[in-house]
Amino acid sequence: MVDFAAIEAAARRLAGITRRTPLLAGTPLDELTGGRVLLKLESLQLTGSFKIRGAWNRLAQLDPAERRAGVVAFSSGNHAQGVAAAARALDIPATIVMPADAPQVKLAGTRALGANIVTYDRHSEDREAIAMQLAARRGATLVPSYDDPAIIAGQGTVGLELVEQAGELGLAPDLVLLACSGGGLASGVALATRALLPACELNCVEPAGFDDTRRSLLAGERLANAPGGQSLCDALLAPAPGRLTFPLLQRLLAGGLAVSDDEVRHAMAWAFRHLKLVIEPGGVVALAALLAGRVLARGRTVALVISGGNVDAGLFSALLQAPAGGGAVQ
Amino acid sequence: MVDFAAIEAAARRLAGITRRTPLLAGTPLDELTGGRVLLKLESLQLTGSFKIRGAWNRLAQLDPAERRAGVVAFSSGNHAQGVAAAARALDIPATIVMPADAPQVKLAGTRALGANIVTYDRHSEDREAIAMQLAARRGATLVPSYDDPAIIAGQGTVGLELVEQAGELGLAPDLVLLACSGGGLASGVALATRALLPACELNCVEPAGFDDTRRSLLAGERLANAPGGQSLCDALLAPAPGRLTFPLLQRLLAGGLAVSDDEVRHAMAWAFRHLKLVIEPGGVVALAALLAGRVLARGRTVALVISGGNVDAGLFSALLQAPAGGGAVQ
Repeated sequence: MVDFAAIEAAARRLAGITRRTPLLAGTPLDELTGGRVLLKLESLQLTGSFKIRGAWNRLAQLDPAERRAGVVAFSSGNHAQGVAAAARALDIPATIVMPADAPQVKLAGTRALGANIVTYDRHSEDREAIAMQLAARRGATLVPSYDDPAIIAGQGTVGLELVEQAGELGLAPDLVLLACSGGGLASGVALATRALLPACELNCVEPAGFDDTRRSLLAGERLANAPGGQSLCDALLAPAPGRLTFPLLQRLLAGGLAVSDDEVRHAMAWAFRHLKLVIEPGGVVALAALLAGRVLARGRTVALVISGGNVDAGLFSALLQAPAGGGAVQ
Repeated sequence: MVDFAAIEAAARRLAGITRRTPLLAGTPLDELTGGRVLLKLESLQLTGSFKIRGAWNRLAQLDPAERRAGVVAFSSGNHAQGVAAAARALDIPATIVMPADAPQVKLAGTRALGANIVTYDRHSEDREAIAMQLAARRGATLVPSYDDPAIIAGQGTVGLELVEQAGELGLAPDLVLLACSGGGLASGVALATRALLPACELNCVEPAGFDDTRRSLLAGERLANAPGGQSLCDALLAPAPGRLTFPLLQRLLAGGLAVSDDEVRHAMAWAFRHLKLVIEPGGVVALAALLAGRVLARGRTVALVISGGNVDAGLFSALLQAPAGGGAVQ
C-alpha cells in the first residue's frame, strides 16, 4: 500500500524531473477572505497539470522488459499528457485512449509528446475496456489514472512541497482544498499533509453532479455519479471514487464540497484578472469553493491546489466575454 | 547615482514586501529554440508587474513630512498600481495621472488600491506637466516612472533575483532580453546582471515604432519616437530614453530589438497555450522577440523578463479567437 515513505521515495524519484511549482502567497484573496491564502500552482507544472508526477513515478519503476512492451493509459487529457511526457523521456512506447471530445489543447499536447492516441465516444464506449484490450494485445502495462499506489504516491509529492514551501514562509496550512475526481491527487496530498501536519483539515472539491466523493464520504461507502451528467470540468468526470483512494479519503478528509459551472467560470475569470493565471475548469474548483464562500477562511491559513491549466482558447475567451467574467468580476 | 550597492540596498528594503517571483525553466521553449530558456515571471509580482519594486524603494525613503504631503505619479497603469500599492501600505496619500484610455484593469486596479486618479487625454495633454502642477500645488513628491535612482535600483532587484535563481538551477544566463520603454527596468537589471555576470549580453526589446532606445543606442544619442505612433503595448509608449537611464543602457546593453503587434499577439497566445500564463502586450515583448527568431538561442542560456500581466479581458479574448492565436498557434 501507499504510505508516507512511498511519497518520500516518489519525491526522490521526481527530483530534477518535475517542477517544484510556485506557492503563491499575498494575493488579493487574503483581503477578500480575511485568511492567509496559499496557492500551489500545478497549472505551471510540466504538461500543465500535476499528472506527470504520478505518471513518472509509475513509469520509472517499470523494468526493462516492461518498458519495451510499452504502456497504455486512458484519460480525458491531463493524465494522458503526463504519461506521454514520462514515456517519451524514458523511451517507452505509449498508447493513450482519449475521448474524441477532449479539449483540443489536451489532444494536441498528448500527440506532440509522441504518444499514439486512440479516441473513443465518451457516451457510448467503455474507455477502460478499450484500454485493457489494447494493453492485453500488446503485453503493455496499463497505467491507471488514480487507482495505483505509485500514482497516488507521485501525486502526493504536491503535498510534500506545499507543506515545505509554506514552512519557508513561516506558515502551516490549517485547511487544504483539493480538486477531486478519482481521488489520486486528494488521497496522495492528504497522506503527505496529514503526516507532516496532523491537525490540518482537508476538503476535496468536486463539480456539482460529479460529487461522488462528497456523497460517498457522507454515506460511508463508494457511490457512483448519476449517468448522463454534464460539467465544464472535463478533468473531473470519474464515475466513482477509486477502490484504493476511497479508504484513504475516508480516513484523511474532513469532507467534500461541490461547485457549480457558474462558480467555476467566475473563478477562472477572477484568476485571469487578479492572478494573471490560466486555470482550466477542473483545476480551479478549489479556488471556486473559496470565492463562493464555501469554507470559513477568516483567521486561518488556507492552501489551494490549482491542479491544471489546460483549457482551450475558445472556452477561455468565451468566459472572459461573459457578463459575469472578465471586466465585471470582482 | 545608482550602482550595484544601491540595488543591494533596494533588495534589503523589499525583502518580505515584494514577491520573489518564480523563474520558470524547462518549458517547450528549450526544444523550440535549442537553448535553455528561463522566464522571470514579474507578471506574478504584486500588482501584476515589476513596477512595485521601484515604487516601494522610492516611497520607503521619504521622510515623515514628505510622506504626509503625499506623492504624485503619472503612468499608463503599471507604475500607477505600483505607486498606489506602496503608498497604501506606507500610509501615504497618492494621486496618479493616467490616460483616459488606459486598460480598464489598470484603472480599476489603481482605484482599488485607494489612489486618487486624474485622467488626461493622451493625444492632446502633457501628463508630465499635469503631474508637476499637481505635485507643486500640494507640496507632494513627484515619483517618476523611470528617471530616478531609487526607481532604477528597485527595478534592478529583478536582475539580482534572476541571477540568484538561475544559479540555484546551476545556470548563468548568456543573454538577457528585457522589455524597454523609459529604461528603468532595463538599466536596473543590466546593472545588477553585469555586476554579477560581466560576460552576460543584454538586449532590450521595444515595440516597433517605439524603438527609440534601439535607435538611440545605434546613434549614440537620445532620439525620440515619431509622434502619432500606435502600438498594442500600452505600457511601452515612453517618448524617448530617460536622461538617467540612457547612459547606463549605452554602457551595459549590446543593443535593441523591435517586435511588431502581430508578433506580440502571437507570443501572448503562445504563452496562454504553452505556459498557462496571462501576459500583457508590453510584458511579452522579450518572449515575442525569441519566438520571432530575433536572437540566436541555440546552445545558450537565455533569460527573458516577463514584465507584466495586466491586460483587459476583451483584448485577451479577441487575440485568442484570432486565426493566428489560440488553437492554431504552435
